[in-house]
Amino acid sequence: MDYDLIIIGFGPAGISAGLNASIRGKKVLIIGKKSKALEKSPSIKNYLGFSDIKGLDLYNNFRDHIKNYPVKILDRKIKAVYAMGEYFSIDLGEKMLTSKACIIATGIDMGKSIEGEDEFFAKGISYCATCDASLYKGKKVVLVGYNEEAIEEANFINKMASQTIFVNPNKKPIELDDGIKIINKKPKKFLGALKAESLILEDGEELKADGFFVIKNSSKPKSLVPSVKIENSHIKVDLDMKTNIKGLFACGDIVGTPYQINKAVGQGQIAGLNAASYISKNK
Amino acid sequence: MDYDLIIIGFGPAGISAGLNASIRGKKVLIIGKKSKALEKSPSIKNYLGFSDIKGLDLYNNFRDHIKNYPVKILDRKIKAVYAMGEYFSIDLGEKMLTSKACIIATGIDMGKSIEGEDEFFAKGISYCATCDASLYKGKKVVLVGYNEEAIEEANFINKMASQTIFVNPNKKPIELDDGIKIINKKPKKFLGALKAESLILEDGEELKADGFFVIKNSSKPKSLVPSVKIENSHIKVDLDMKTNIKGLFACGDIVGTPYQINKAVGQGQIAGLNAASYISKNK
Repeated sequence: MDYDLIIIGFGPAGISAGLNASIRGKKVLIIGKKSKALEKSPSIKNYLGFSDIKGLDLYNNFRDHIKNYPVKILDRKIKAVYAMGEYFSIDLGEKMLTSKACIIATGIDMGKSIEGEDEFFAKGISYCATCDASLYKGKKVVLVGYNEEAIEEANFINKMASQTIFVNPNKKPIELDDGIKIINKKPKKFLGALKAESLILEDGEELKADGFFVIKNSSKPKSLVPSVKIENSHIKVDLDMKTNIKGLFACGDIVGTPYQINKAVGQGQIAGLNAASYISKNK
Repeated sequence: MDYDLIIIGFGPAGISAGLNASIRGKKVLIIGKKSKALEKSPSIKNYLGFSDIKGLDLYNNFRDHIKNYPVKILDRKIKAVYAMGEYFSIDLGEKMLTSKACIIATGIDMGKSIEGEDEFFAKGISYCATCDASLYKGKKVVLVGYNEEAIEEANFINKMASQTIFVNPNKKPIELDDGIKIINKKPKKFLGALKAESLILEDGEELKADGFFVIKNSSKPKSLVPSVKIENSHIKVDLDMKTNIKGLFACGDIVGTPYQINKAVGQGQIAGLNAASYISKNK
């Protein structure tokens, strides 16, 4: 087993879960990209104990706090979490990691899906370039990029793909590596039979491709953990932050509103401590 | 209506609830004594954002934070909360206050009850001298005092009672007003028929009295809110911190483990925001 506990998500909920499980002596890995929404918040007035603090400063406090503990941080996205019964397999694309327990704390994607996106997910549509770009070596790829990370992802894909098209719904100027075509239009729907075959844009333009990527702040919980129970678009948990899967916990925005930092941190603490108990009982 | 929201409890959960409801523009009163357990904690290492902080310093941060908002604080205990359908009546003994919504955040009494205590609660046994001392004017009272507050309470009772006996289970030296008898023994059980009539001490000594007070850090939830649903000795709530009673929320230690500060603060935030929504919808 690589770790006692793997936490997916490096925002307030994930860091809190990691801190508390580490204090209980568990070997913890956190996998996730930085929380850009938190970093960019100009003023937070309701994280109790700090009357008024910039998001970046609060996030730095959180990250400094966890540096006191032997928690490993892996700055990347994952492809999926598989519940194997007595352990979990975390699919990073090029390799797998295993853990006794797992906590999902990825936050939530506030945006709506593109029409056809949910239907064709994992059938020609991916949320993770690091995981799936290699599938499209020498092929044509269309990426819909909602955030800054999408720029990096597009440049990465372009090293392998024969052609990369970047659909830029925000229409703000962006800079990409040479050879990537930028289209400043909103996506409308994916079309296809067994898999996504083309993307229709707002003006009716059709982009055919071998593969599609949608890069936004987080992916749908169902695409991350295929067997997890969802209720009202959130992972269903009880007061102990347990999901329907043994040893799998979830916390923070992904389990429901309010989307607030203290709430996420509190639930992260519950999830981290309960995961630690679970690991101790199932040695 | 005196307030939009009355919060019972001035610990981390109650303060967080008050902060968040006040930010949403609600008229908020917090009723509760200071959290002495938090004040006395020498070192807290898992309140995310503060790597290592004394309990007193963290609590001062919390109280300073809420001073920025027009939240009223009433430093006392209450007798009971009554759900009246469309509003709540908070019984302070000498008077009643009303609110549209109510949050219970009193923390939990970690100690066991004395034998017979639960049975005779409100039948000759009270948890609140400020509320009930006037019932025993010119009568004989026995008080079991577990905390510092008990000293104040005993002095208060003694102004009305004809005789006051202080049972001091901790057996540490205490100073009380003249005329109060101190017995340094542990209580064993209450005896009585329809109401508590005497208290048996560890060595078999029997103390008869007209009324009994048990002063400890918090009272049983069922004695505070007679109609609230309890599960495993805690107030039963859902993920939104709603109880079985419309408009009544609960958060912090009183709704279950882990007994931790971030958890309490996070749940306080959920309760405060959901109470604010409830109040807005039920104007």
